[in-house]
Amino acid sequence: MKPALGIDFGGTAVKLAVVDERGTIVAEDGFATAGLEGVPGWIAAVADAASRMGVNPAAMARSLAGIGVGVPGFVDFDRGFIHNLTNVPGWKAVGLAGLLRKRFGVPAVVDNDCNAMVLGECRYGVGKGYRHAVFLTLGTGVGGGILIDGRVFRGAHSMAGEIGHVPIDLHGVRTPTGRGGLEQYVGNRQIVRKARAALRGRRSSMPAMVGGDLRRLTPRHIAEAAAKGDAVAREVFDYVADCLATALAGVTYLLQPEAFIIGGGVAAAGPVLFGPLRKRLDDRLSPYFAERIKILPAKLGNRAGVVGAASLILRA
Amino acid sequence: MKPALGIDFGGTAVKLAVVDERGTIVAEDGFATAGLEGVPGWIAAVADAASRMGVNPAAMARSLAGIGVGVPGFVDFDRGFIHNLTNVPGWKAVGLAGLLRKRFGVPAVVDNDCNAMVLGECRYGVGKGYRHAVFLTLGTGVGGGILIDGRVFRGAHSMAGEIGHVPIDLHGVRTPTGRGGLEQYVGNRQIVRKARAALRGRRSSMPAMVGGDLRRLTPRHIAEAAAKGDAVAREVFDYVADCLATALAGVTYLLQPEAFIIGGGVAAAGPVLFGPLRKRLDDRLSPYFAERIKILPAKLGNRAGVVGAASLILRA
Repeated sequence: MKPALGIDFGGTAVKLAVVDERGTIVAEDGFATAGLEGVPGWIAAVADAASRMGVNPAAMARSLAGIGVGVPGFVDFDRGFIHNLTNVPGWKAVGLAGLLRKRFGVPAVVDNDCNAMVLGECRYGVGKGYRHAVFLTLGTGVGGGILIDGRVFRGAHSMAGEIGHVPIDLHGVRTPTGRGGLEQYVGNRQIVRKARAALRGRRSSMPAMVGGDLRRLTPRHIAEAAAKGDAVAREVFDYVADCLATALAGVTYLLQPEAFIIGGGVAAAGPVLFGPLRKRLDDRLSPYFAERIKILPAKLGNRAGVVGAASLILRA
Repeated sequence: MKPALGIDFGGTAVKLAVVDERGTIVAEDGFATAGLEGVPGWIAAVADAASRMGVNPAAMARSLAGIGVGVPGFVDFDRGFIHNLTNVPGWKAVGLAGLLRKRFGVPAVVDNDCNAMVLGECRYGVGKGYRHAVFLTLGTGVGGGILIDGRVFRGAHSMAGEIGHVPIDLHGVRTPTGRGGLEQYVGNRQIVRKARAALRGRRSSMPAMVGGDLRRLTPRHIAEAAAKGDAVAREVFDYVADCLATALAGVTYLLQPEAFIIGGGVAAAGPVLFGPLRKRLDDRLSPYFAERIKILPAKLGNRAGVVGAASLILRA
């Protein structure tokens, strides 16, 4: 099979890679979204990037099996239609797959980025061989993708897998997506806010890490402090783990996947997150469920987006 | 196709029915579980009930396509194996499907009762034609069944769909199945407890309905009072609806089914439950999800168990 072009459409930058059917990146490139003129400008930038990777945009079918795009937002997968990208102005109601097919003459599919990533991780990453898995990415937002019977599960209207909005507290904070959603507890900003509050009147190594300016604190600092044994930082990660465990317990009771695969910036914290997460999840499940569910750190790292997007084509 | 024998294995009583492929009950019978001698006694009682319905237990294959059993507990569907029935002593680690096949010489399957019911409702009840639906039964316990792509979804180890244990409050009450599970908020006993607490110092028609003895209060009384406009009873149902909506919002974000189908005793409350439930769910979802999800009262009523169990065979 020919390789596929995987496109990871982020809020500020677009990453592209030519990926072969073993999941290996053959070539990669990228461009910034700032300054592009709308959707046509974006497609022209894809053509330029393809050229730089040695793919002739005027004869793409010769070298590529197709184009897979992962986008951060609501997508109608069957129609290749983007409803809305929250963080990318101007991308509302765009039939992107059709535009790509027309411009480049190859099959093209568009999916939510986390749907692409669960497929990538289960084909080429840590979830190899799993038939039922749930992928989470922990960052500014919390995204999810569900694999059922070896296929991405998109629900009745192509929007399933939004684990960041799953409520973990019926009395929680109100947002446009509901009340008490997971993201309000374990998103980057919320973790930092929690740490700042926990630091009041406590001794900790964290203030010195940011020159005394807690506005500069990031989840990475907190993870680093926790890894070195800082008590406040450990408390923060234990809280984050418990909030995450609440949502994962719900998903386990509903779907009983084989494994959770967890990626994204916050997941890079490693054992200071995964240790308490395992403990807290076991604590929130009956043993029948707890002993059957795995929690795995994602493996593809910053390649997850492009490899996942390409796997939408390579998988087919 | 020949009809099937559907068995609804309840905690105190077992209902049986011969069901044809249009979902019509051709004959029905039942027996109490009390006094039966273990699993062999139970199987003998099934044989007796079959005889009474005009089915020769010694030549069952002549008249029946098979036996479907719905049980209230954890089951390994593929092996027809009952792990444990919480409310039925002596039913631990029973390979029931194999025993039935051996005794009666017909295909036999055993499933969780709510899995059977979601199939029954989506084949013969209110969910006819749906491919993605989630069934809930509201009673002493809260059970669930998930239909994905027209088939019961059982997860990696056959225990999925346990919506009663899905947490809605990370700070909620601890139980052997976790913390803050839905059942702890909308189970029969919890609804009555909530009503008793809400009644303190308030005027209401409820005390008179139970001769002043609030120990006799049931969800049915509360529903009746709410239907007549009792303010306290309406508050209780609004609270129950909001707790339920929290769990349903989570399921919607994860799975985006076409519909929720809600049955069981509490669901018989009708509009006093379904009215606030619709409002509360809309309030807890983004419009993209809210406008696409239906909430339907189950239709098969007390036939749901036997028809659902039979549909496990008729469906195949």
